[in-house]
Amino acid sequence: MASKPSIPKGTRDFGPVETARRNYIFNTVSEVFRSFGYSQIETPAMENLSTLLGKYGDEGDKLLFRILNSGDPFTGVDFDAYKSEDGRFNAPALSKALCDKGLRYDLTVPFARFVVQHQNELSFPFKRYQIQPVWRADRPQKGRYREFYQCDVDAIGSRSQLCELELVQIVDQVFRNLGIRVLLKINNRKVLTGLAEVCGFPDKVVDITVAIDKLDKIGLDAVKEEMLSKGLSPEAVQILEPVLLLEGSAAEKIARMRDVLASSETGLKGLDELEELFGFISSAGITLPVEIDLSLARGLNYYTGAIFEVKALDFQIGSICGGGRYDDLTGIFGLPGMSGVGISFGADRIYDVLLGLEKFPVNGSSASRLLFANMGAREVGYILPVAAMLRSRGISVELYPDSSKLKKQFDYADRKGIPFLSICGESELEQGLIRIKNLSSGEESVFGKDEIDRMIEALS
Amino acid sequence: MASKPSIPKGTRDFGPVETARRNYIFNTVSEVFRSFGYSQIETPAMENLSTLLGKYGDEGDKLLFRILNSGDPFTGVDFDAYKSEDGRFNAPALSKALCDKGLRYDLTVPFARFVVQHQNELSFPFKRYQIQPVWRADRPQKGRYREFYQCDVDAIGSRSQLCELELVQIVDQVFRNLGIRVLLKINNRKVLTGLAEVCGFPDKVVDITVAIDKLDKIGLDAVKEEMLSKGLSPEAVQILEPVLLLEGSAAEKIARMRDVLASSETGLKGLDELEELFGFISSAGITLPVEIDLSLARGLNYYTGAIFEVKALDFQIGSICGGGRYDDLTGIFGLPGMSGVGISFGADRIYDVLLGLEKFPVNGSSASRLLFANMGAREVGYILPVAAMLRSRGISVELYPDSSKLKKQFDYADRKGIPFLSICGESELEQGLIRIKNLSSGEESVFGKDEIDRMIEALS
Repeated sequence: MASKPSIPKGTRDFGPVETARRNYIFNTVSEVFRSFGYSQIETPAMENLSTLLGKYGDEGDKLLFRILNSGDPFTGVDFDAYKSEDGRFNAPALSKALCDKGLRYDLTVPFARFVVQHQNELSFPFKRYQIQPVWRADRPQKGRYREFYQCDVDAIGSRSQLCELELVQIVDQVFRNLGIRVLLKINNRKVLTGLAEVCGFPDKVVDITVAIDKLDKIGLDAVKEEMLSKGLSPEAVQILEPVLLLEGSAAEKIARMRDVLASSETGLKGLDELEELFGFISSAGITLPVEIDLSLARGLNYYTGAIFEVKALDFQIGSICGGGRYDDLTGIFGLPGMSGVGISFGADRIYDVLLGLEKFPVNGSSASRLLFANMGAREVGYILPVAAMLRSRGISVELYPDSSKLKKQFDYADRKGIPFLSICGESELEQGLIRIKNLSSGEESVFGKDEIDRMIEALS
Repeated sequence: MASKPSIPKGTRDFGPVETARRNYIFNTVSEVFRSFGYSQIETPAMENLSTLLGKYGDEGDKLLFRILNSGDPFTGVDFDAYKSEDGRFNAPALSKALCDKGLRYDLTVPFARFVVQHQNELSFPFKRYQIQPVWRADRPQKGRYREFYQCDVDAIGSRSQLCELELVQIVDQVFRNLGIRVLLKINNRKVLTGLAEVCGFPDKVVDITVAIDKLDKIGLDAVKEEMLSKGLSPEAVQILEPVLLLEGSAAEKIARMRDVLASSETGLKGLDELEELFGFISSAGITLPVEIDLSLARGLNYYTGAIFEVKALDFQIGSICGGGRYDDLTGIFGLPGMSGVGISFGADRIYDVLLGLEKFPVNGSSASRLLFANMGAREVGYILPVAAMLRSRGISVELYPDSSKLKKQFDYADRKGIPFLSICGESELEQGLIRIKNLSSGEESVFGKDEIDRMIEALS
């Protein structure tokens, strides 16, 4: 009757293998987050549109999935009032009349909303993590989905650089646990502001950062030309030149920038922050390579201090983790002056890196250890208590539900990746035995039906 | 500026404590599901409306949350064509013109869709579990939410009663692990069909079941009267009377029903199924109380064999878990003849039972074990490597980010439920010591800063 069913474009099903792999990532990051005292929260998939609109720019507003009001949202709406002369509708306005709710677009705005709404129940600094899907009506393309998970970890309510340090420690520990070699790049928005100030073009922060970012690709002279073409004066470019030539350790870079930024209070404050953070990093025994990268401009419009980005060293892909400090996240919801710092782990990209580098644990699937073949009703009665005993000892065990041909039962174990098969027929019953075959080596072992300890050893 | 933000009615935020509690439930059921070889899958929150519509009855269609098509969904729509003379709009039809997608309403239909769509990648019997939120535009009321989690576990592709047994075993193990005493009620749709057949009113299955259900409340005579009032003949009621008087063990009930259902092939088949299942239950050493309850009518319209329901014994609440066998779940999507059986754990109700019976683990929150007070920059540098060492040994440890007044740091530990506090000032630094206070007993211990093993012992 029906044609083969499908799912909306840009969305994905996660089968057993994919789900087990993704859970491996979620469990790894959660465990690290918890070891630093971050608590998990969850917010509803639907937020009021008034919470979401205007928070992600005009482009973001367009990418919100809106939920039609339930019941009859249409009666009483004057559709003609939303129609212009060319027959087109004012889609944003009409959408607002029909929809009060939208799907969350990220985890940051719901977090800010949560903090303001529950401020009296929370103890600050509030350290939370959140692992939930978000939805964006982006044009689907390779690697870009309309539903995807974010894993965010944030501390709000303290301006201490120890919060930044914790995020560095978390990045270090997470990727060590995942077995991925990474580089952590750090920048500071105040330093960028300072650079723009000292060269006399305080409104050109973005242009300057974008130009610095091209240094590796186009070289020093071309970068200087680009700055001039953006309206900077030759004197300004000369002031910035030492910054383009920065080399050495973080301490050396900071020291050299102190000269350049000497006249900018904001810039020096940024350098103080960087210096304090790198001091903490060395005290804490971080092994992760961490470098200052002035071209890091990620989220420049809302970060106010540290900016972070993590790159995989052995796999070609964009940043797999990033974040920064924002001084007034909750102001939009009426609670000003709450400084916070957070990072977001890109689950989809980390998934791709682990897959590409073959770093997923081999036994990461949720396959059972042992399949008991089904040889008929009497044999099943014999097997059931043994299976129950193994399970009570923490071993995943399956009993094939039908007494089908052995070939079919074999295939089932094979396709599911179950490593051991037990075939117990009449003769095993009579002798009170359990026979277990290792499907990869072909080796067979025989146990008394009460020798659970020995079986567990063989199955491990 | 803004008024205090809020979330859509019928939805909830889950703070640290609630999330930790819910995770405890999810982790407990998942572990049991996996020990029986069930694999987790996840499907998208959004499904095509064509997948969802018509699967939950007219009432269900109305309760679907629909997602407005992105971009401009309005231009080109002739709104007047959906308007009737009284000025009202045909909401279902117009919704369909504006919305191609909806939020999933349960996990069963997406599972059926998944099985059909991925049939060539799956090995059957396919045993899956799924723990995801669902959304319904129900009128919110106490205990009824518009967003709530379902935990479904199903096996599809086998008609063996061993699949039913597994669900019984899973129920037994889950509630044993959660520490909740429950009763499992089992019925069989074929038996109900048989009863309606043998009394000559095959179309009155529902009326008969509803009447039986009232036996405890209104007594035998009133039930018989109700049956008559629903159009059953006095002879029919007489035929059914032995069923109303059923007592004893499952075996006794089945034996007595064999007489009543002797002329119904379907009824006898149902009894065979029950008998086989109860045979397996006794072989498998199930300790859970399981009883046959002919009044169990849950989901009568789609179950075709076993019907399950779980009641908490020590807490007044509706059923906390239920399910059954459906012979043709995937037929609606073009794959006929796939028999499956599944149950769904009601996470919200189980949460309420655990809370009411105080069965949540005391240390179930995600609080850290130890807070290091922040006594200033030098002390922080001294603490950082110790904190890192403890974390690397699996202990959750926090360092307060600001060198605030000790009272404030104390309060933070107290409000977060952190049981140990370490205050290391100048004198500890000089002597190379770490001082740890048990906040509930007030007891204080002192350690050399390298005595990590001793510290871990004290913190456990």
